[in-house]
Amino acid sequence: MSSFGRAFRVTTFGESHGGGVGCIIDGVPPCLPLTEADIQPQLSRRRPGQSSLTTPRNEADQVKIQAGTENGYTLGSPISLFVANQDQRPVDYSDMSKIPRPSHADYTYAAKYNIKSSSGGGRSSARETIGRVGAGAVAEKWLKLKYGVEIVAWVSSIGDQEIERELDLDTISREDVDKSLVRCPDEAATAKMIEIIEAAKADKDSIGGVVTCVCRNVPTGLGEPCFDKLEAMLAHAMLSIPATKGFEIGSGFAGTRMRGSKHNDPFVVKTGADGKKRLGTTTNHSGGIQGGITNGEHVVFKVAFKPPATISQAQKTSEYGGGEAVLEAQGRHDPCVVPRAIAIVEAMAALVIADAALLQLARQGSLVSEPIVAWQI
Amino acid sequence: MSSFGRAFRVTTFGESHGGGVGCIIDGVPPCLPLTEADIQPQLSRRRPGQSSLTTPRNEADQVKIQAGTENGYTLGSPISLFVANQDQRPVDYSDMSKIPRPSHADYTYAAKYNIKSSSGGGRSSARETIGRVGAGAVAEKWLKLKYGVEIVAWVSSIGDQEIERELDLDTISREDVDKSLVRCPDEAATAKMIEIIEAAKADKDSIGGVVTCVCRNVPTGLGEPCFDKLEAMLAHAMLSIPATKGFEIGSGFAGTRMRGSKHNDPFVVKTGADGKKRLGTTTNHSGGIQGGITNGEHVVFKVAFKPPATISQAQKTSEYGGGEAVLEAQGRHDPCVVPRAIAIVEAMAALVIADAALLQLARQGSLVSEPIVAWQI
Amino acid sequence: MSSFGRAFRVTTFGESHGGGVGCIIDGVPPCLPLTEADIQPQLSRRRPGQSSLTTPRNEADQVKIQAGTENGYTLGSPISLFVANQDQRPVDYSDMSKIPRPSHADYTYAAKYNIKSSSGGGRSSARETIGRVGAGAVAEKWLKLKYGVEIVAWVSSIGDQEIERELDLDTISREDVDKSLVRCPDEAATAKMIEIIEAAKADKDSIGGVVTCVCRNVPTGLGEPCFDKLEAMLAHAMLSIPATKGFEIGSGFAGTRMRGSKHNDPFVVKTGADGKKRLGTTTNHSGGIQGGITNGEHVVFKVAFKPPATISQAQKTSEYGGGEAVLEAQGRHDPCVVPRAIAIVEAMAALVIADAALLQLARQGSLVSEPIVAWQI
Amino acid sequence: MSSFGRAFRVTTFGESHGGGVGCIIDGVPPCLPLTEADIQPQLSRRRPGQSSLTTPRNEADQVKIQAGTENGYTLGSPISLFVANQDQRPVDYSDMSKIPRPSHADYTYAAKYNIKSSSGGGRSSARETIGRVGAGAVAEKWLKLKYGVEIVAWVSSIGDQEIERELDLDTISREDVDKSLVRCPDEAATAKMIEIIEAAKADKDSIGGVVTCVCRNVPTGLGEPCFDKLEAMLAHAMLSIPATKGFEIGSGFAGTRMRGSKHNDPFVVKTGADGKKRLGTTTNHSGGIQGGITNGEHVVFKVAFKPPATISQAQKTSEYGGGEAVLEAQGRHDPCVVPRAIAIVEAMAALVIADAALLQLARQGSLVSEPIVAWQI
Repeated sequence: MSSFGRAFRVTTFGESHGGGVGCIIDGVPPCLPLTEADIQPQLSRRRPGQSSLTTPRNEADQVKIQAGTENGYTLGSPISLFVANQDQRPVDYSDMSKIPRPSHADYTYAAKYNIKSSSGGGRSSARETIGRVGAGAVAEKWLKLKYGVEIVAWVSSIGDQEIERELDLDTISREDVDKSLVRCPDEAATAKMIEIIEAAKADKDSIGGVVTCVCRNVPTGLGEPCFDKLEAMLAHAMLSIPATKGFEIGSGFAGTRMRGSKHNDPFVVKTGADGKKRLGTTTNHSGGIQGGITNGEHVVFKVAFKPPATISQAQKTSEYGGGEAVLEAQGRHDPCVVPRAIAIVEAMAALVIADAALLQLARQGSLVSEPIVAWQI
Repeated sequence: MSSFGRAFRVTTFGESHGGGVGCIIDGVPPCLPLTEADIQPQLSRRRPGQSSLTTPRNEADQVKIQAGTENGYTLGSPISLFVANQDQRPVDYSDMSKIPRPSHADYTYAAKYNIKSSSGGGRSSARETIGRVGAGAVAEKWLKLKYGVEIVAWVSSIGDQEIERELDLDTISREDVDKSLVRCPDEAATAKMIEIIEAAKADKDSIGGVVTCVCRNVPTGLGEPCFDKLEAMLAHAMLSIPATKGFEIGSGFAGTRMRGSKHNDPFVVKTGADGKKRLGTTTNHSGGIQGGITNGEHVVFKVAFKPPATISQAQKTSEYGGGEAVLEAQGRHDPCVVPRAIAIVEAMAALVIADAALLQLARQGSLVSEPIVAWQI
Repeated sequence: MSSFGRAFRVTTFGESHGGGVGCIIDGVPPCLPLTEADIQPQLSRRRPGQSSLTTPRNEADQVKIQAGTENGYTLGSPISLFVANQDQRPVDYSDMSKIPRPSHADYTYAAKYNIKSSSGGGRSSARETIGRVGAGAVAEKWLKLKYGVEIVAWVSSIGDQEIERELDLDTISREDVDKSLVRCPDEAATAKMIEIIEAAKADKDSIGGVVTCVCRNVPTGLGEPCFDKLEAMLAHAMLSIPATKGFEIGSGFAGTRMRGSKHNDPFVVKTGADGKKRLGTTTNHSGGIQGGITNGEHVVFKVAFKPPATISQAQKTSEYGGGEAVLEAQGRHDPCVVPRAIAIVEAMAALVIADAALLQLARQGSLVSEPIVAWQI
Repeated sequence: MSSFGRAFRVTTFGESHGGGVGCIIDGVPPCLPLTEADIQPQLSRRRPGQSSLTTPRNEADQVKIQAGTENGYTLGSPISLFVANQDQRPVDYSDMSKIPRPSHADYTYAAKYNIKSSSGGGRSSARETIGRVGAGAVAEKWLKLKYGVEIVAWVSSIGDQEIERELDLDTISREDVDKSLVRCPDEAATAKMIEIIEAAKADKDSIGGVVTCVCRNVPTGLGEPCFDKLEAMLAHAMLSIPATKGFEIGSGFAGTRMRGSKHNDPFVVKTGADGKKRLGTTTNHSGGIQGGITNGEHVVFKVAFKPPATISQAQKTSEYGGGEAVLEAQGRHDPCVVPRAIAIVEAMAALVIADAALLQLARQGSLVSEPIVAWQI
C-alpha cells in the first residue's frame, strides 16, 4: 500500500503526469509550530531542474498545507500536503507506449495492473517521492525540537569515484554538503564526480552512486526487537526509494570480513550533550544500533543507487508484444539521481526515526521509572 | 511489534531461556496439506549443535502444530507452532549480569525496557528465529504447490573467502548446498571456509560472512509500488534477522559503478515453465524486480552477517555502571552464524513472497481480465 | 488514526474551517471506470443546505479527483479526492472559545491535544465525513460492477416516530428514499417526522433518529472469523460516524428476548440472481451474517443517532476554567442529522464490504476449488 | 485476521477441538508484575461447567504463560498464553456433518474456506474467546495499576426480564455480580432469570440477554478522532464476541428519541479521585465519550446476545446438499451464554482501553505541557 509508519504515518498519492502529488501525514504530535516554510527547503533540494547535471524538467514544487494546522501550529489532526504538477509534457512518452523501457517499471506495472498510465511506470516516477520529502520535513522538525536530532546525507561515491578522506561525522552539515554541485562534501571528489556525470550525459548514458547518511542525537532505545528492528525499518525505507539496490548499516558488507574481536564496539563512559554520563562505544561498527535498538551513538548507513534506466542512447530490446525493437528514450531525465536523492534519503530516515520515537513514548506505560535491575551509571 | 506480513502474517514469541518459542501464522490459505513433517526439516537445518562449527548447545527443536490443521489440512484458521526449550543453562550468563556484551543487545534492551532478562538480550537471541523458520516452511509449502516457487540460499563468503566460480542459478538446490559443512555449494571454497571458522574458534573469536539467495518461479507482478516494493520488503525481512549488516538486490553496490547502458536488462521473448511465451530479460542486474514489482526473472539478493558478538576472548569494556571491565563471555556460542542462517534467510524470503502473492490475488478485484492497453505477447 | 480498511483503505483529512477536506483511497482495483460524476451524487445527498430542515451552511461540495485515474479508468494507484471549503464563517464560533459545548467534542479535543482549533471540535465536524462519502462512492461503484451489490439506507425513525409498516427489502431503492424530504420511504411517517423536526427547530432544539440499511447481493463468505467479523467491522464503521450511539445487526436487541427455536433461521434451497441454486434462509434474524461471515442473505443493520449537541437554546453549563456559564450556541447547525446521514451510512457500509471482498479474493490462494468435504448443492 | 489492537495487540489461535487455545499479547509494558494467578480468575469466570445453567462440558482451563515474563515481571517481549483442551468429544458432532446448524457458523465457514472442521464452525467456537479473556486480564492488571481503571460487567436482562431498579455505577463490583448464579446484581431479577433459563433448558431451547458494562477511572483523552473513536473500537470489540447482535454507548437507541436540550450533559466542576478539580458532567448520556474521546466520566455500554443457535429441539432445515432435514443437535451447549459472557465483555473492554491508553502515551511527543489555549481549570 502507499502508507509508511505505524504511529507517525505518511500516505502518498500522485503520478508524474496528473494534477499533482502529495500526502497525508497522520500522527504528527499536536502543538508543533509548522508552516510551509519548514517544508519547502527540502522539496527544493529534491526538485528537478536544479543544475545542468539534473533533468531539465522544471518544477517549482511549491507545497501547500491543506489541513491539519491553524495559526502556525499542528492540531494533532492529519496534515495534508499538495504540490501541483506544472511542467508536464506527456507527449514525450508517446514512443514508449509500444516498448517497455529496459530496467524501468513500464513492463511490471502493466503486468501488475493490466493498465498503463501514459507515463509508463505510473507511481514509480521520482515525483512520487515529493510526498515523502514533505512528510520527512515535518518529522524532522519535530525530531529536531524534541530531541535535537540532526540528519545529514551526502554523496559518497559516483561511479568509481569515492571520497578519499575520512569525514567528521560529528560536525558534517547540510551547508557543507550543499556547497558541492553533486552534494559531495569533498572538493576534490566533487570535481571528478562532475566529470563522470557529464561524460555519461554526453554519451546519452547514466551512472549510479552511493549516498551515506548520519543521524545524530537519536535517543537511546528506539527500534523494536524482532521484525521491526531500527535497521530493518531503515532498510525497508531506503529500498523503497526508486532506483536503490543496496543498504548497509554500520560496517555493512565490509563487516562480514572482520573478526568479532575487531568488530565489537567496546563500551566506555561518555558525556552526552545534556551533560549526563552514559555508556557509549569507542568504535561504531554497529552503526548506532545493537539488537535492533539504538544505543546513543550516531546512526550511520549507506544506500546504493543504480544508474537511471531511462537513457536516450539506442538500446536493443523488445516491444510489449514481443517484436524486436530499438529504443531511444525521449523525455527529460537525470543522468545521475544521487545529488537529488539526498533529500529523499534524509526524509525517509526522519520518518523511520519519528515513528520509532512515538512508539517508544508508548513504553512510558511502564510502571517503573527506576530499572528493576540496575543498568544505568 | 512481533508481527510480520499483512495478508500472510506471522507473530512470534519466546526468549532463549523460557519454556519455549513459537509463533502464530495467520492468513494461511485453507485446504493446504500440512503436518509437522513439512516444517521440521528447515528447523533442523537451523538448529544448534549440527556440527563442530556451531554452538554446542543441543536442541532437538521438535515442532508441534497446536492449532489450525485437522486431518492433515489447514483450516484457514491461525496455525500455532510451538518448540520447547530443552538444553538451557542460564547459569552461563551469570557473569554477564554486570557487563553488557560489546555489540550485543544486552545494553540496548536494558535501556529500552528498564528490565533485563537473565540471558541478556532477551528476544535478540537467535532462538527467536525458530518461529520465523517454522512459519517460513509453511509459506514455502504453499508457494511451491501453488506457483512452483523454489527458494535456495547458500553461503557465498566467509571472511575474505568467496566462491570463485559462477553458480548456475537455474539449478542450484538445497541438496547441493547441504553437501557442504558450511553450506557453500563449492568444494574448494568450503575447505577454506572451514579453515577460517576453525581458526577463529581456536582464537576464541568469531567471523562474518555473506548469504546469497535465489527465488525461482516467483510470479510476475508481486510487490507494491511506493513503500512496499518487493525489494523493500525483502530488505526489511533480511535486516530483521539478528547479526545482519547489509542487503543487496541484483547488482547491489556494484551496480552503482555501472552505466545505465550496461546495467539495463534488455527485454527478449522467453518461454516459461508453463510453455507460454513471456517477456524476459537477457541479463538480471535488476535481481528479478523492476519498480518494486517482480518481472518473472529469478529474484536474487545477498545478506551480510557480521561476526557474532559473543566471544570468549577477553575484551576490554565497561560495566553497566561505568566501571572498567574485562569480559570473557561464557555460554555456548557460534564462531560463525552463516551456515545456520541459510534456513532463516530462506524462511524470511518465503514469508515476503507469500504475503505479496496473497495481496496480489486481491487484485483479481479488477473488472477486466484483458489488458486495457495491450502489453502481453 | 485517520485510516479505515486493510485492503481497500481510505485515509481522510480536513477540518471544518481549513482549506478543504478530502481523502486518499488506496487499494482500489485497477481498470475501474471512474470519474467525478460517480462520486458527486452521494456528496450532494450528504451536503448541507439541502432543505429548510438542515443547516443553512451552503457548500456545493464539488469533488475533484487529484490522482489515481487516467482517461476515466483507475490505475491501481492511490486515488486522491479533494473538496474545497467555501462557506466558512469562523467568527460564529468566537463565543464558544471559553465555553465547551455540552456533549460536543470541544472539551475532549482540548484535553487530548492541548490545543483548540477555532471551530472547537476540529475533526469531529461532520465535514470530516466528506472524505468517507467520496471513498464510499468509489467502493460502491466497484461492488456494483463486480458483484451487483446494492446498498440502500433510510430514516426509520425520528424521535418517537417510526415507520409503521413493513418495507420490502428486496426492492427498496434510493429513489424511494429520496422522494421524502427526511429520506423516510413512507409518506405517512414522513409528514410526522417533518413536524417533529420543525418543532425542535422552532424550540432552538434538536432531535435524534434511527437509520436502517440493507445491502443486497453481498457475496457469501465475506468477513473474518474472530476479531474482524463482518458485523464487528460494520459496528466499528457505524459508531465512527459522528453522533451515533448504537448499532444492531439483524434482530439486534429485540433478538435478546427471543428463544433460539424462533430466532434460528432455517436453511432452505433458494435460486440466486445468477440462476444457481444455493442454501438460503427462510427468516433473516441473523441479518445476513452468521459466525461473522456473510451467508448470501441481505445484510441488514440499524444505526442510532443522538440529537445534535449544538443547539441555540440557552444551556446552563461551565466554562473551560470552571466558572458557571450559560451557552447559547451560535453558528449554523442541523436540528436533526439523520436525513443527511443516510449517505454516510451507505458509504461506510460500502467501505466495509469492499474491504472484506478484497480480503476474500486473497483466499483464492487455496489450492482446491472443489470442497474437501462437500457442502455445496 | 486474528489480531486486535494496534499498540496493545492480541493474536489468538485455537479451535474447539484441537490441542488447545491461546494467544500472543504484544505491546505489554515491561516491568509489570504478572503471573498466571493474575489471569486465571477471569478464565474461571468464563469457563464452561460452572453451574447447572451452563454447558456440562467441563474444562479446567488452566492457563500457562509460555514466554514474556521472568521472575514474575513482564519483559516487554510478547507474552504467550496457552490453555490445553481436555474434555473433547468430537463424536458429538458427527450428526451435524451433513446438516449445517441454523444460525450457526457451520455453513458460512464451509462456504468461506471450502473445508469443514469436525466441530463445524471452527473458530466460531466460544473456546476461541479464551485467548481474549487471558489477554484482557493482562490489560486489566496494567490499567488497574497504572490508572486505577475498574471494569465491571453484569447481566442486565435475560429474555424479557430486566433489572427493575437503578444500580449505583460508582460502586458496583465483581463481588456483587458473582453473588448471583446468572451474574445479575439484583436478587429479585436473578430469581426470575434463573426460571427463564431453566424453562428454556427444559424445552431443549435457548434464550438471549443483555450485558451492561461500566469502566471507571478511564483517563480523559483516550480514543482517536475519526475512524477509531473509542465507542467505535468498543463496538468493534463487542460485536466480535460470538452471538452478539447489538451495541449501545451511553443513551443508545433510547437517546434517538430525546431532544438535545435533555440529552446534552452539562459541564460542572468535579473533584477527581486524585483530589484535583476537573470538568465533569452532571448527567452521562454520552456514556463517558464525546467526539470519540473519553471525558473522564464512567464509560458505560450495553451488548446484546442472541439465544445460542445450537439447541437439541428438533428443527426443520436443510442438508448442505439441499435435501430437507430435521436437526436435533447433539453436543453439550449453553441454554444461555450471558452469565459466562461477562468475563469476555470485560476482557474486550480492557483490551480497547489499554490500546487507546498506549496510543495516547505517544502523544507525549507534544512539545508543550501547558495548553496553547487554556482549557484547564
